[in-house]
Amino acid sequence: MNIGVIGLGLIGGSFALSAKRHIKGCNLYGEDQSEKHLKQALKLEIVEHNLKPSNYSIMDVIILAIPVDSVIDKALYLLDYVNDNTLLIDVGSTKAKVCKEMELHPKRNQFLATHPIAGTEFSGPSAAFVALFSGKPLILCESNKTRPDLLEWAINWFKNIGMELQEMDPKEHDKHIAYVSHLSHISSFMLGKTVMEKEQDEKAIFDMAGSGFASTVRLAKSSPSMWAPIFEQNQENILEVLDEYIANLEEFKLLMEQQNYKEVFRKMQQTNSISKILAGIN
Amino acid sequence: MNIGVIGLGLIGGSFALSAKRHIKGCNLYGEDQSEKHLKQALKLEIVEHNLKPSNYSIMDVIILAIPVDSVIDKALYLLDYVNDNTLLIDVGSTKAKVCKEMELHPKRNQFLATHPIAGTEFSGPSAAFVALFSGKPLILCESNKTRPDLLEWAINWFKNIGMELQEMDPKEHDKHIAYVSHLSHISSFMLGKTVMEKEQDEKAIFDMAGSGFASTVRLAKSSPSMWAPIFEQNQENILEVLDEYIANLEEFKLLMEQQNYKEVFRKMQQTNSISKILAGIN
Repeated sequence: MNIGVIGLGLIGGSFALSAKRHIKGCNLYGEDQSEKHLKQALKLEIVEHNLKPSNYSIMDVIILAIPVDSVIDKALYLLDYVNDNTLLIDVGSTKAKVCKEMELHPKRNQFLATHPIAGTEFSGPSAAFVALFSGKPLILCESNKTRPDLLEWAINWFKNIGMELQEMDPKEHDKHIAYVSHLSHISSFMLGKTVMEKEQDEKAIFDMAGSGFASTVRLAKSSPSMWAPIFEQNQENILEVLDEYIANLEEFKLLMEQQNYKEVFRKMQQTNSISKILAGIN
Repeated sequence: MNIGVIGLGLIGGSFALSAKRHIKGCNLYGEDQSEKHLKQALKLEIVEHNLKPSNYSIMDVIILAIPVDSVIDKALYLLDYVNDNTLLIDVGSTKAKVCKEMELHPKRNQFLATHPIAGTEFSGPSAAFVALFSGKPLILCESNKTRPDLLEWAINWFKNIGMELQEMDPKEHDKHIAYVSHLSHISSFMLGKTVMEKEQDEKAIFDMAGSGFASTVRLAKSSPSMWAPIFEQNQENILEVLDEYIANLEEFKLLMEQQNYKEVFRKMQQTNSISKILAGIN
């Protein structure tokens, strides 16, 4: 079985490692825009062969793990060149646009739109590891448009990796993920920025930082090449939640200005119940 | 040697455990406003005896680990009742006000103002653990006002626990800590609030949450009883950094509205260098 992985970063690389572990006798082909990353992935034995356009037609499965602004063109191109039984799996963080653009392609039923809710703040082939997806959610969108035999293969594989599958409408996906992922990244990036601006003057400040700070700004280490396109593609939903977030911060600020610390206390206490929700997240 | 710990939560309890481990033959006395916490601390063997006002005069060291709005009154009261060789250590998260209020007490030189930059999002005696302070910063304020023999004892003990000591002006402390600790908590609490408000309508949203979200909202589990008084006492500094944080978020939002994703990319890329700074934080 020939498996191609396009984009050999954290996500693509980890899928390659998962295929190597879970699919007996598979041949792994890899492609990356960065020559350096490709070489690194070959050296780390994440993939075995260089995936070239001339090989597309011999792939049984292709996993597309590239920044979301490149996904659509590349997916349309790939569908044109693959054989009639190749499954193309997109694993990007936005789903509405890609699902819409694939809709009319004659090989639409060889395409599967997914979003693995897994990641770390690190990027590149060296960040990939086989256990990344274990126990993590995998969102499938419009899976009824994928050919049943291909879908069945994919579902089996994802379950073998240990992922928890759920189906979701692509527009709903993009709306919800803006809250639980995209907003967290903006909040973290801007927290990092605010503190770093201060640090221009006061180098000592970071000697005082503890694990709480490290935890809240962890995502500010994420790759801008991956995240700027996500923000662009999910702009509408993100602007809405960003507005709500800023409004909540403004309200908190106002309560502090009014010295209404009873209400400050109450707002925090209400939010404490998030621990119940977080209990289910690794 | 008799050591009293007032406030048997995460911080006080962990200091009690550290004393038990590192100070040979010490007798540990504990006090807590909550009868339940006191019983729990005795049961967990965090302390051995109930600390009563009638025992204050036989304490060699008292560690004051209570919410910052109660610290000043309690510290002034304690200094009145302790003997002439007792060391009173305050470990609260704000320092300017307490240093100012202690200034004129005749036993000022038996008082030591500190802030251990250590903690978790959990609270109460059951959250305490002996390794909490290992490798963590400890800020000392106006330690030159503490009697040299008492200060020397404290420094030795803190170093034995593995803390990294640094001296800082109390006003500077409060200003800096607003950035690297207090703002992180507000950012996290409001992120949790924003997402929970949404969750009222859409229960499914949390099934999609990953470890990135968990990391950024971790601090939203923190104790409001501890944090509301900190926000109140450090109001001026916090309002300043909160303004800067909101301004940064507004700027990011504007860039998105203008579809200026080159600049969005650039802002994130600049902030990426925070990873170098975070490398030094556990």
